[in-house]
This record gives sequence, C-alpha cells and structure tokens, in this order.
Amino acid sequence: MLVRLMYASRATAAFSEADLAQILKTSREHNPAEGITGLLCYSDGMFVQVLEGGREAVNARYKHIVLDKRHRDVVLLGYEEIVERGFPGWNMGQVNLHRLNPALVLKYSETGRLDPYAMSGGAMAALFREMCASGAIAVS
Amino acid sequence: MLVRLMYASRATAAFSEADLAQILKTSREHNPAEGITGLLCYSDGMFVQVLEGGREAVNARYKHIVLDKRHRDVVLLGYEEIVERGFPGWNMGQVNLHRLNPALVLKYSETGRLDPYAMSGGAMAALFREMCASGAIAVS
Amino acid sequence: MLVRLMYASRATAAFSEADLAQILKTSREHNPAEGITGLLCYSDGMFVQVLEGGREAVNARYKHIVLDKRHRDVVLLGYEEIVERGFPGWNMGQVNLHRLNPALVLKYSETGRLDPYAMSGGAMAALFREMCASGAIAVS
Amino acid sequence: MLVRLMYASRATAAFSEADLAQILKTSREHNPAEGITGLLCYSDGMFVQVLEGGREAVNARYKHIVLDKRHRDVVLLGYEEIVERGFPGWNMGQVNLHRLNPALVLKYSETGRLDPYAMSGGAMAALFREMCASGAIAVS
Amino acid sequence: MLVRLMYASRATAAFSEADLAQILKTSREHNPAEGITGLLCYSDGMFVQVLEGGREAVNARYKHIVLDKRHRDVVLLGYEEIVERGFPGWNMGQVNLHRLNPALVLKYSETGRLDPYAMSGGAMAALFREMCASGAIAVS
Amino acid sequence: MLVRLMYASRATAAFSEADLAQILKTSREHNPAEGITGLLCYSDGMFVQVLEGGREAVNARYKHIVLDKRHRDVVLLGYEEIVERGFPGWNMGQVNLHRLNPALVLKYSETGRLDPYAMSGGAMAALFREMCASGAIAVS
Amino acid sequence: MLVRLMYASRATAAFSEADLAQILKTSREHNPAEGITGLLCYSDGMFVQVLEGGREAVNARYKHIVLDKRHRDVVLLGYEEIVERGFPGWNMGQVNLHRLNPALVLKYSETGRLDPYAMSGGAMAALFREMCASGAIAVS
Amino acid sequence: MLVRLMYASRATAAFSEADLAQILKTSREHNPAEGITGLLCYSDGMFVQVLEGGREAVNARYKHIVLDKRHRDVVLLGYEEIVERGFPGWNMGQVNLHRLNPALVLKYSETGRLDPYAMSGGAMAALFREMCASGAIAVS
Amino acid sequence: MLVRLMYASRATAAFSEADLAQILKTSREHNPAEGITGLLCYSDGMFVQVLEGGREAVNARYKHIVLDKRHRDVVLLGYEEIVERGFPGWNMGQVNLHRLNPALVLKYSETGRLDPYAMSGGAMAALFREMCASGAIAVS
Amino acid sequence: MLVRLMYASRATAAFSEADLAQILKTSREHNPAEGITGLLCYSDGMFVQVLEGGREAVNARYKHIVLDKRHRDVVLLGYEEIVERGFPGWNMGQVNLHRLNPALVLKYSETGRLDPYAMSGGAMAALFREMCASGAIAVS
Ligand SMILES: Cc1cc2nc3c(=O)[nH]c(=O)nc-3n(C[C@H](O)[C@H](O)[C@H](O)COP(=O)(O)O)c2cc1C
Ligand SMILES: Cc1cc2nc3c(=O)[nH]c(=O)nc-3n(C[C@H](O)[C@H](O)[C@H](O)COP(=O)(O)O)c2cc1C
Ligand SMILES: Cc1cc2nc3c(=O)[nH]c(=O)nc-3n(C[C@H](O)[C@H](O)[C@H](O)COP(=O)(O)O)c2cc1C
Ligand SMILES: Cc1cc2nc3c(=O)[nH]c(=O)nc-3n(C[C@H](O)[C@H](O)[C@H](O)COP(=O)(O)O)c2cc1C
Ligand SMILES: Cc1cc2nc3c(=O)[nH]c(=O)nc-3n(C[C@H](O)[C@H](O)[C@H](O)COP(=O)(O)O)c2cc1C
Ligand SMILES: Cc1cc2nc3c(=O)[nH]c(=O)nc-3n(C[C@H](O)[C@H](O)[C@H](O)COP(=O)(O)O)c2cc1C
Ligand SMILES: Cc1cc2nc3c(=O)[nH]c(=O)nc-3n(C[C@H](O)[C@H](O)[C@H](O)COP(=O)(O)O)c2cc1C
Ligand SMILES: Cc1cc2nc3c(=O)[nH]c(=O)nc-3n(C[C@H](O)[C@H](O)[C@H](O)COP(=O)(O)O)c2cc1C
Ligand SMILES: Cc1cc2nc3c(=O)[nH]c(=O)nc-3n(C[C@H](O)[C@H](O)[C@H](O)COP(=O)(O)O)c2cc1C
Ligand SMILES: Cc1cc2nc3c(=O)[nH]c(=O)nc-3n(C[C@H](O)[C@H](O)[C@H](O)COP(=O)(O)O)c2cc1C
Repeated sequence: MLVRLMYASRATAAFSEADLAQILKTSREHNPAEGITGLLCYSDGMFVQVLEGGREAVNARYKHIVLDKRHRDVVLLGYEEIVERGFPGWNMGQVNLHRLNPALVLKYSETGRLDPYAMSGGAMAALFREMCASGAIAVS
Repeated sequence: MLVRLMYASRATAAFSEADLAQILKTSREHNPAEGITGLLCYSDGMFVQVLEGGREAVNARYKHIVLDKRHRDVVLLGYEEIVERGFPGWNMGQVNLHRLNPALVLKYSETGRLDPYAMSGGAMAALFREMCASGAIAVS
Repeated sequence: MLVRLMYASRATAAFSEADLAQILKTSREHNPAEGITGLLCYSDGMFVQVLEGGREAVNARYKHIVLDKRHRDVVLLGYEEIVERGFPGWNMGQVNLHRLNPALVLKYSETGRLDPYAMSGGAMAALFREMCASGAIAVS
Repeated sequence: MLVRLMYASRATAAFSEADLAQILKTSREHNPAEGITGLLCYSDGMFVQVLEGGREAVNARYKHIVLDKRHRDVVLLGYEEIVERGFPGWNMGQVNLHRLNPALVLKYSETGRLDPYAMSGGAMAALFREMCASGAIAVS
Repeated sequence: MLVRLMYASRATAAFSEADLAQILKTSREHNPAEGITGLLCYSDGMFVQVLEGGREAVNARYKHIVLDKRHRDVVLLGYEEIVERGFPGWNMGQVNLHRLNPALVLKYSETGRLDPYAMSGGAMAALFREMCASGAIAVS
Repeated sequence: MLVRLMYASRATAAFSEADLAQILKTSREHNPAEGITGLLCYSDGMFVQVLEGGREAVNARYKHIVLDKRHRDVVLLGYEEIVERGFPGWNMGQVNLHRLNPALVLKYSETGRLDPYAMSGGAMAALFREMCASGAIAVS
Repeated sequence: MLVRLMYASRATAAFSEADLAQILKTSREHNPAEGITGLLCYSDGMFVQVLEGGREAVNARYKHIVLDKRHRDVVLLGYEEIVERGFPGWNMGQVNLHRLNPALVLKYSETGRLDPYAMSGGAMAALFREMCASGAIAVS
Repeated sequence: MLVRLMYASRATAAFSEADLAQILKTSREHNPAEGITGLLCYSDGMFVQVLEGGREAVNARYKHIVLDKRHRDVVLLGYEEIVERGFPGWNMGQVNLHRLNPALVLKYSETGRLDPYAMSGGAMAALFREMCASGAIAVS
Repeated sequence: MLVRLMYASRATAAFSEADLAQILKTSREHNPAEGITGLLCYSDGMFVQVLEGGREAVNARYKHIVLDKRHRDVVLLGYEEIVERGFPGWNMGQVNLHRLNPALVLKYSETGRLDPYAMSGGAMAALFREMCASGAIAVS
Repeated sequence: MLVRLMYASRATAAFSEADLAQILKTSREHNPAEGITGLLCYSDGMFVQVLEGGREAVNARYKHIVLDKRHRDVVLLGYEEIVERGFPGWNMGQVNLHRLNPALVLKYSETGRLDPYAMSGGAMAALFREMCASGAIAVS
C-alpha cells in the first residue's frame, strides 16, 4: 500500500549548511533502498518534507525523522493512501531551497514568509504543487 | 487564515483626485506590511474594493476604511475564507479607473453605469474578473 | 435584477417591410434608454424576440409589445433571472431575417420551417444560439 | 406543453373587496374551461398569482390580465415549462389573503411586509410553498 | 437582498452585566424597525453575533457595532447573501450565555473554551447550529 | 486547527494488563489538559488508537507515543483536518477490548482476527464506526 | 435483454367492450408464454400500453399490435433497456379503465381529459406511476 | 416533438442490390416531405437504421417499414425524445455499406462481424457514432 | 485485500442431491479456515455462487471450483475489490434452493426460469439481493 | 456481452523464452477465432494479462489458462462488463517485455520491481495504461 506523508518542522538554532548536506547524504543512502521518494524543502529555518512509498517503509523512516535532534515541532500536514506517487522521479534530499519566491508564498499565506504552522495541509500542498510547476524550487 | 473581502461605497461629494492619490499613498504604505493585497476600483463617484490577507489584518484595516470620512454607505459585497489569493501580485491602491467600458458593465447590470448597490456580490465579482481579464481596468 | 425574456408571435396578415422598419426604429429609440438589449428575429410571418434588461424595464416594455396590433398569439418561450446578459452587444431591432438556413432549423424542428409554437423554449434557445454562432442570422 | 407562470402586481388605489370578488367570479368561469389552475394571493394592495396550464391558454389569459385596469406594474416573477402541475387541485380565485403571517414573510424579505418587487422569483416561490404548507393562506 | 453576517469580538475589560443589558435594550429598540434579526452570544468575555436582514440595513448597523467602544478585535466570521433567514423568530439581544456546555464546544475546538478567533467561520456556524438545536443556549 | 489521527501498533511480548492500566492512567492525566480525545483499542496484542484535538497537541503527543517502548511497528492509518470531532465525549484510555466480535472483524478483513496492518485506513475506520455503533467495544 | 415499451393508440370508431374483452383474452393466452408483462389502459377511446419482456419477444408482439385493425395512430411513447421490470406481477390485459380521475390527469396535461398524443413519454410515465400508486386504475 | 428511433432487421434471403436501390429511391421520395432524416446501414444481410423526425411522422413511417416483406425480425434498438437531431444533414437512404471495417466492429462486439441482435442499443449507437466519425461508412 | 467473486455454472447431467450435500460438506470444511464466506444457490441444474474473502484465498479456491467435474460452463458474473463483505454471516454451502419464486426471477429475466447466462452480472446481483431480502432463499 | 478480464501469475521456475514463444504461438492461433483480444505482459518471472471478448469465450479460455502448468498463483486483478474494448487492435501474445521502466513501475508500487500481487487491480490497470501510452512496452 502506497502512502504520501507531509510534515513541517523547525530546524534547531544550531542548524547549518553542513547539517543539511548530511541529511541529504543520509537520505540518498536510505531512501532508494526503502522505495521512498519525495521532496525536502528547507527555508527560513523551517522544513517541509513529502515522503512517498510503502506504508511500513514511510512510517518506519518517519519515526527516525521525528526523533532527529536537528529539528523540532514536527507536525503532520497530511497523510493519505495513494494509487500513484506524485514525485516518482525525485530522489529525496536533492532539494535545497535558498530563496523562495515571496510572491508565490504570499498567494497562499498571510505574509510573504513561509509559515507552514499557520497553513492548512491543503494550502501547503497547493503551494508545493505550484512551486514545482513554476520551477521556484532551486535544486542544489 | 486567509480571507477575501469585497465592498462598495460612495465617495463624498467633495472627493477629488488628490484624495484618491492620498488613499493610494496610504495603502501603499500600510498594506504590504500587513500582508494585504487586492484591488481598488474608482468610477463615477463609487468605490469597489477587494481586500485579501490574514483574517485579523483584513478586518482591522476594514474597520479603518469603514470609518473613513471620504466615503459613505459602505456595504459588504462578499467575504469568504480562501485557500489562495486571487490578486497576489497587485499592490493595493495602484488602480485608478477613469473610464469603465459601458458595454462590459451593461453585461452585468441594468444600465451601462456601474451601480454596485443594485448588484449581487456574485455579479460584481464576475464583472471584476472580466474587467481584469479584458484589461478594461486602467492602471494609474 | 437582470432578466431574460423570450417570446414568439405571429405577424398580422397585413404586416409589411415598412412595419418591420418602423418597429426597428422604435426599438432603437426606446431600448437603449431603458437598458434593454436583445435580438428580434423575423421569418415566415413569425417573430421570436429575446429581451434582456432590468426586471421592471423588460416587463414594462413587454406589456407594450403584447398589446401591439401588428402581431398576435404572443407566447412566452422562456423567462429567467440572469447574472449576465447573453446579448450585451446587440442593439435590439437591428436584426432582420430574410432567409433562415433550413438545415439549421430542421435540426431542432419537425420540418425545415421555423415554427416556435411547436418547440419547447429550450429547443428555441438552442436554435438561437446556433444561429448566432454560425452567422446564419443576417443583420439588415 | 404545460407551463407555470408567476407574477406580481399592484392593485389600483380604488381597488375594493367587490373588485376582488368580481375577479374571483370571472376566474371561476374562465379558468376551468381553459384548463388553467393556480393560486391568487392578495395582500396589502399587492397581488401575486400563479397560473398553470397549457402554454397557449396561460399566455392568452395572461395577456388579458396584463391589460386589466384594476392593477398595474405587472412583473413576471417566474415562467417555466413543467411536467406536472404544482396546484392541480386549486380552483383559481378561491384564495383571499386578509392577513399574512409577518414572521413567515420576514423569513424571506427585508421587512415583515410582503413586497414581491424586492424579491427574486425563487424567494417568492419558496415563500409561497411555505405559506401553503403551513396553512398560512386563508381560503375565503 | 437578504444577507447573513457573523462576527466575533472581545468585550473590553470593564464590560459588565449592565453593559450587556444596555446592548440588549438598544438592540430591541433598533433591530425590529430595521428588519434585523439574529442572535447575540456572550461567553467568557467574547461575543459572537449573527445579524440577518436587508443588505443596507445590516451593513449600516454593523458599522455602528464595529465602532462600539465596549468591545474590540471585531472579526468577520462569515457573510453571505441568503434566500431565507435562519433566525426569523429570534429577537436580537434576548440571548445571554452564562455557561456554555464545554463538551459541545470541545467538539468544534481545540479546548473546552470557546475561542472564535481560533475557529473557521464554518466551524463556528456549525457549533451555533448545534447549540441552538440542543437548547444549550440559555435565553435570559 | 482540529485533526484526527489513527494508528496501529504491536504490543511488545512482555506487555501486561498492568501496562495497559498504566497507559490508561497516563492518558487520563495528560489528554484532557491537552484537549485530546479519542479511543484506544487493544486486542490480540495489537493497538489501534484514534487521537483527536489541536494539530500541535496531537502531534506532540503522537511523538511520545511513537517512542514508547511498550509497543512497536507504529503505522499511521489515517490523518485528516476535521471541523468537528467524532469522539468528543470519550475520555481516552477508558477502553479495553478483551474480546472483539469475530463476525464483525471478518466483515472487514480476510480472517476473523483483527490485523490492522493488512487493512486500509478506510476499512479500519469503517470497522471502528461499526464497533462503536454496535456496542461491540467493551468499556473497562 | 429486458426492454420496456410504451405506446399510445386510438381505438377505431366501432370499438366495443366485446373487442376489449377479446384483446384481454388474447393477451392472457400469449403474453405469459412469451414472458411479456405490463399494463393496458383504455380510456375515452384511447389506449396506452406498457409491454415489458425480452427484446425479441416484445418487438415481435408489438409488430402484431401495430397491425391490429382495432386501433390506429400507434405512437411509441418510450422504449428502453431495463435491468428489472416495473410491472412483474401484472398479467397484461387485466386492466380496464372505465373512469380516470380527472384531477390526476389534469396534473400532467393541459385539460382533464387524457390525451397521450399531447404528452411527452416522461409525463405519461409519471402519470402512469401515480395512477398505479394511488389505485386510480380499476382492475376489471 | 422530435424523436430518434433506431432498429435492426434481417434482409430476406432474396434481397438484392436492386431491392436496396428501390428502398433508397422510396426513402428519398418520402422522407424529406415528412421531415424524416437519418441513416440506413446495410451489411452482411442486416440493416440498422436511424430515423429522426416528428413523433407522429417517424411512427407512421416505422409502421410501414415493420410490415415491409423485404426484411424480418425488426427489433427496436433505441427510441428517445430529442431536442436536436444527430443527423440533420443526411438524406435517408443514401448510405450503402459494402464493407464494414472489422476492427471497428470488433471494438464493440464479440466477433468481427456486425450482429446488432447481440448488442445493446447503447453499444450499437456508439459504434454508429464512431463509424460516422471515422468515415468508415461508404456513401453509395 | 478483500474481493467478491460471483459466477454461474451448469451442473452435469448426473448431478444429484448427494453431490450437493458433498459440496456443502467440503465447503464447510474448507471455507472458514480460508476466511471465505458467501452463498451457493442451486436451481434448475444451475449454480450461482458468491465467494468473498482475501484475494489469494478466493482465487485459489476458485481454481479448484473451475476444475470441478460436477459442473461446467463456469462463467464469471462479477469480480471486485471490496471494503466490507456483503455476506459476512453466511457460512458457504448452507444454502440449497429447491424452488425459486418465479415472480421474483421474472422481474430480472426474460422468462420465469433462472438463466444466469442470459443476464448481466448487475442484474444477477440485484436478483440475489432481492432474494436474500425477501427470504425467497430456502436454507437447507 | 463483452467483458475485460485481467490477472497476474508467476511463471514456474523452469519457464524459458521458448515457453513464451510457444504461448504466443498458441494465442495467435486461438484468440482471433474466439474474438479474444488483449495484452500479455511478461517481466521478472511474472505475467499480467488482459483478455477482452465475449463473456463465454473469455471464461472458457481463462479456464485453460488457469490450469496451465507453466505458471501458478493465478489471481484475478479485475473483471468487468464493457461496452467497448480497450485493446481492439492488439493481437494477444505479441508482447514480450524484457525490461520494464523502473521509474514507471515505482510510480505505482512500493519498490521499482513489478509485483502485481502487492497492487490493487486499479493501480495495475493505471500502470498498464501508462505503459501503453508511453511506449514502455516493447513489442517482440
Ligand atoms: C528534516 C529532516 C529530514 C530528513 N529526511 C530523511 C530522509 O528522507 N531519509 C532518511 O533516511 N533520513 C532523513 N533524515 C535523517 C533522519 O532523521 C535520521 O537521521 C536518519 O534516518 C537516521 O538513519 P540511521 O540512523 O538509520 O542511519 C532527515 C532528518 C531531518 C532533520
Ligand atoms: C475607498 C477607500 C479605500 C481605502 N483603502 C485603503 C487600503 O487599502 N489600505 C489602507 O491602509 N488604507 C485605505 N484607505 C484609507 C483608510 O480609510 C484609512 O485612512 C487609513 O487606513 C488610515 O490609516 P492610519 O490612520 O492608520 O494611517 C482607504 C480609504 C478609502 C476611502
Ligand atoms: C414583434 C415586435 C417587437 C417589438 N420590439 C420592440 C422593442 O424591442 N422595443 C420597443 O420599444 N418596441 C418594440 N416593439 C414595438 C412595441 O410593440 C410598441 O409599439 C412600442 O414599444 C410603443 O412604444 P411607445 O408607444 O411607448 O412609443 C415591438 C413590436 C413588435 C410587433
Ligand atoms: C390580479 C388579477 C388576477 C386575475 N386572474 C384571472 C384569472 O385567473 N382568470 C381570469 O379569467 N381572469 C382573471 N382576471 C381578470 C382578467 O384580468 C380579465 O378581466 C378577464 O380575464 C377578462 O375576461 P373576459 O373579458 O374574456 O371575460 C384577473 C384580474 C386581476 C386584476
Ligand atoms: C457585541 C455588541 C452587539 C451589539 N448588537 C447590536 C444590535 O444588534 N443592534 C443594535 O442596534 N445595536 C447593537 N449594539 C450596540 C451598537 O454597537 C450601538 O451602540 C448602537 O447600535 C448605537 O445605536 P445608536 O447610537 O444609533 O442609538 C451592539 C453592541 C455590541 C458591543
Ligand atoms: C498504545 C499506547 C497508547 C498511548 N496513548 C496515550 C495517550 O493517549 N495519552 C498519553 O498521554 N499517553 C499515551 N501513551 C503513553 C505515551 O506513550 C507516553 O508514555 C506518555 O505520553 C509519556 O508521557 P510523559 O512522559 O510526558 O508523562 C500511550 C502509550 C501506548 C503504548
Ligand atoms: C390496444 C391493443 C393491445 C393489445 N395487446 C396485446 C397483448 O398485450 N398481447 C397480445 O398477445 N395481443 C395483444 N393485442 C392483440 C394483437 O394486436 C393481436 O391481435 C394478437 O397479438 C394476435 O395474435 P395472434 O394472431 O398471433 O393470435 C392487442 C391489441 C390491441 C388493439
Ligand atoms: C430496411 C428498410 C428501410 C426502409 N426505410 C425507409 C425510409 O426511410 N423511408 C421510406 O419511405 N421507406 C423506407 N422503406 C420502405 C418502406 O418499408 C415502405 O416500402 C415504404 O415506406 C412504402 O411506402 P408507400 O407504400 O407509402 O409508398 C424501408 C424499407 C426497408 C426494408
Ligand atoms: C458449484 C460448486 C461450488 C463449490 N463451492 C465450494 C466452496 O465454496 N468451497 C469449497 O471448498 N469447495 C467448493 N466446491 C468443491 C470444489 O470444487 C472442490 O471439490 C473442493 O474445493 C476440493 O477441495 P480439496 O480437493 O482441496 O479437498 C464447489 C463445487 C461446486 C461444483
Ligand atoms: C501466461 C499465459 C497466458 C496465456 N494466454 C493464452 C491466450 O491468450 N490464448 C490462448 O489460446 N492460450 C493462452 N495460453 C495458453 C493456455 O494456457 C493453453 O495452453 C492453451 O489455451 C491451450 O489450448 P488448447 O489446449 O485448447 O490448444 C496462455 C498461457 C499462459 C501460461
């Protein structure tokens, strides 16, 4: 059974570029073997990640992520059983957002800064789709 | 939570181009900081304005506007919670309508003159969308 | 409140081209001032007219038309409150049908001759839309 | 083809109970022979009437009614082709409203007084249905 | 045109039972004459009010209310054009909530305390309907 | 923002009645203060739990639960934003299932034994609803 | 494949009660063997009949009926493939209508007399259903 | 009232090209005067014909056709009241199918040979539409 | 994954009551252990059976049944993935139909005799549901 | 009656290219004569096949296939009555998949390897459609 899981979290104060690189490396090692695909978005000290894959695999990996000390306030934005993946071609962890288009963020939020904690899961997903479609996401 | 608010009002008799310029200036100062976007339409001594943004911000600003002595008979045409803005790219106050296309107005009203007080909110919104789409709105 | 009214009628035996011209002239004088737009179709001694505009204006004008001695058997084919006009750009009375495309009429009726009395309002409206779209209506 | 026609009108200043009785008498003579059924509501100097029957019959009778000098400002509220009558058992003209329930009227209008001219056809029809259902209509 | 308007606000610190009584008295004097009906709910220093009536009347009264110094943070929860009132029989101002059923509030909110500022307009309306239906609203 | 979260897990081999009692006690202490309601179902060494409440509160508590050493293989079965709770009156932790009705379980699964890991979230939710409705859940 | 066929026809001038009895007798002999069920309605010199059964059987029988010299102007009112019969328990030919309820007929037609030729198939079917439901059909 | 009637039949053993020509000639003489349009398809000793026109006209002509000794086993495939014709431009009888595209027939039937008796009316109509669209029908 | 499978078959000429008893006995032994439930209907030398259970289990058992020499012409009438069983409480094999209600069968078929080969899967399922609901199925 | 049947199976250990060639040869001989079309997909020791055709023909052939010793674990993925074939132009057996695009498979499954046993029939059908559309299927 395929599922899609989306969550938001806040990086800890000490979080650095090196930490991000490390997470991406880890993800590239684990995810393919576990059949997990998705998208990791980092911006303004906040993460939003989409994980897609088998139900057991995604939940097992999500348990690790929830416990990871490099971020906190992990909050699920959405979780659903799916028939087909939305991000089959993306290898998780390859995405590093340095600068989000504020106009695009503004369209879905109260201010031009991304704050997934103030958004419904549906709005976040819509913003994600539009970011992907518009190429606003810069691949590192 | 994002909301969209649309209202109509009548300019006071003494209302001048200078007043309009002043309103636009004020709006350009306030709105971006409050995450408010939208559209201000002025024609034949009547205003129709759309305000989009966070629920608190829009209501707080609307309170100021309702009290503004430069217009009267402020009447809500619509108010709804939205997932995405319809006018994310417009900076409020930039729009100044010198001449509305009567044929277009006629399509949604009983006569060729814009009278939002005689229209339902839905008709006003449809007219707005068509004005935007057709470029009938002249940006000052 | 905008409404659309459609009716059919039969010209009296004595009806002439001059009568038609007179009706068109009258319509051009009255309708714009009353915010009434629409379409007048004359063919084979029968009229079908669409009137769009404010509810009071359309009904007041319709009362005059019903009483007009130049036609009889006036029968409503449709009447509805609308949000937007279907014929905002047409000035009533400009249309004079000398020859309807029988193939087009046949599509919606039992014979190739237009007989609105044998048609539902919906079929008549569909025929009208197709006539407009296909340019089958000859503007005098 | 069956149709349903609903209109509103204003009684002339001189309109009296005797006039109403006369209209009812006339209706009782004409309508059954023409297959016309419906409802006549009189209140506060205003009429709202529903006529149901064959398309030709209803339009012919409506022409007479529109011309009747005992009322003015006749405005169509609705007109539609129907498969079955809504008032098959009512003999037109039997209904005489001396007193409408204001609470019921208030539910569909801005004030407690019936003003069909300020109502959409849909609201009027809904009020009618509720009046019938609740027995608020007093049969003379 | 009928509209329904719902808003929330916070009573000022000094707000007293006497103030509430005064508001109710004022409402009873104004609203019937203006064709305004609805519901005023007061609980834990917060108001939620529903106003129904003609578009102009409701907006004019709302302007007064927004300016009223006895409360602040007035935020619209909903506004829509309606065909029929939901509260035609309630005289505004008769309702005084001393104690809301926490179980009922909990059903629609994150905690057992009513906080309309943390709720969508739809949830607030649903809570309102259930309070009315269950008799949870105590009429003073 | 209210959410509903449902998961399944397997009790560790050593899990005892005393452990269950301890979990119930803890839940009774924590959940009300956090505005969390729901249902805990224990059967055949497996848990299925529904948690309802504010998004932050539910996620924070879920993090604790995921880490709890008394069970493993925690797998999300469903997660959604809701307008109203489905279990507002249940105090979490009061439910202890000694014996599930196999006929009922069979209706939604391949065998008569409850195996949430082999079920979709939708089927699990349907089974839950029917268990509640039929009183099949024994409250300890 | 099951089908339902409905038609109307006019009895010839000479048609008598004896003819009707003969038709009923014939139908009782043929129809059961051919798996044909339905309803025969005779009123005011007109027939409306519903035939249900296998596609071949119904068409073969209909050919005989079309040719029958005892009636003329046979016109199909409806024909459709069905999954289940609407009249499985009626033996064709048992129904003899001496007197139709005019109020009921009026509901679906322009006058109180049944004229299937002036009705759509849908209206005729609706009338049929209501006649059956209300017991208005007298079984001979 | 416009109707569309579709039937299938089997040509008698002796049926020849001359017979077909004769039918086409007869149709060209009768149908236009009766307002009947449609399509006659002949293939492998079987006919499928669509007749469109007024209800009385189509039924009267169908009676003649059912009785025609040149074919047998006439079976209705469909009959419905329509608002607009599907074949307004075709003069009945002009179509003579010498060779049907077996691939196209196979798409809607169990074998590559057209057997309307083994098809539902809906499948036959779909095949017809696709034959027309693809030009598979050869006009004689 | 749960599935529902329905098929029809013809008993071989030699099929006896003893054979049926044997099948029932076998089914009672196998099915519960495999989580298979359903219904076996035997009438006029034909079987219709519904099998519900896990996808693998149902298919494995169906393979045995297809090969069973006691019947032939096994034809699938339906197969679908389901969320909940329709026959959770029936132990397969308990049902023995000596006499089907012909009126009920007639409702869904061309004659009063059950012939699943001449029926669509949907009609067969509808007949099944009605037989169950009406108690027409006699349990041996 | 047309049906579409889809199943999965596992080739036996000894299965060779020669076996596949033999199956294709057999299919090319049998299927056209039986009006059966479809698609046979072989990959990683597993088959997925779609069979379309008459209900009897498809079931008779499926019985042979289920018994074929060259594969095992035959499991139906879908079966439905259809109006038109999805693969009318494919001759069964011509397709031989040496290499499936893992990215495409990953989109519908938990890992990059095709495992129809872990997929719902709907997901398998969606994958099939996309493989056909993208040309991912290599025709031998
Ligand atoms: C925001 C964030 C996203 C992460 N995403 C992934 C991921 O997609 N895959 C992964 O394996 N680890 C991810 N990690 C790292 C995990 O939290 C964890 O460190 C890793 O799974 C540990 O794996 P291991 O201890 O089994 O090697 C992420 C960490 C953070 C903070
Ligand atoms: C028709 C109309 C539209 C206005 N729109 C805005 C607006 O979008 N933003 C804004 O800040 N002020 C707007 N104003 C001005 C406000 O009424 C008010 O003057 C202003 O918000 C006062 O701000 P301040 O006193 O806090 O500086 C508008 C005034 C009018 C008459
Ligand atoms: C078929 C027909 C269509 C007409 N359409 C219009 C019309 O659209 N507008 C109009 O003013 N008069 C129309 N007339 C003329 C009116 O019947 C009537 O003569 C006219 O409104 C009289 O106006 P007056 O007496 O107020 O000048 C029409 C007449 C006929 C016979
Ligand atoms: C409000 C109103 C309603 C009327 N309703 C009817 C009616 O339903 N039937 C009718 O025959 N006349 C009705 N009349 C009277 C007609 O206007 C007209 O006087 C009558 O049809 C004249 O008929 P006659 O001159 O052909 O006898 C109504 C009049 C008024 C003012
Ligand atoms: C929460 C709240 C609700 C109120 N509701 C109403 C109301 O429904 N009707 C009303 O007339 N005044 C209401 N008032 C009072 C108005 O704010 C205002 O005092 C009153 O309309 C003033 O009327 P006046 O100055 O025209 O007499 C309300 C005030 C508050 C604080
Ligand atoms: C199956 C299961 C369900 C639980 N449900 C709850 C719960 O609803 N609320 C709760 O506070 N703890 C629950 N717990 C216990 C938590 O895992 C954890 O022990 C507790 O939240 C720790 O709280 P504390 O360390 O903050 O006191 C549950 C544990 C298990 C194994
Ligand atoms: C209005 C009408 C309805 C009839 N209905 C049936 C019928 O349902 N079944 C039937 O067998 N004959 C019916 N008949 C009689 C047939 O027209 C025809 O006489 C009969 O089928 C001849 O059968 P036979 O010549 O094969 O014996 C009906 C005739 C009429 C005029
Ligand atoms: C398959 C078939 C189709 C026919 N289609 C028509 C047709 O569309 N129009 C027509 O007038 N006659 C058609 N006919 C001929 C009629 O059956 C009949 O011969 C003709 O209507 C007789 O007309 P008449 O005797 O009134 O001159 C068709 C005959 C057959 C066998
Ligand atoms: C119409 C029919 C229905 C049957 N239904 C079942 C069934 O539901 N369960 C079952 O185990 N066998 C059923 N059987 C018997 C099987 O065909 C087969 O004999 C049996 O599964 C053999 O099991 P075994 O050889 O593994 O013991 C049925 C046979 C027939 C002819
Ligand atoms: C995966 C698979 C697919 C097959 N597909 C077909 C097929 O489409 N048509 C066919 O005739 N045989 C097919 N066969 C072969 C049949 O199982 C069987 O061998 C064949 O129908 C025997 O036919 P015969 O013994 O009647 O000659 C297939 C076999 C396998 C293993």
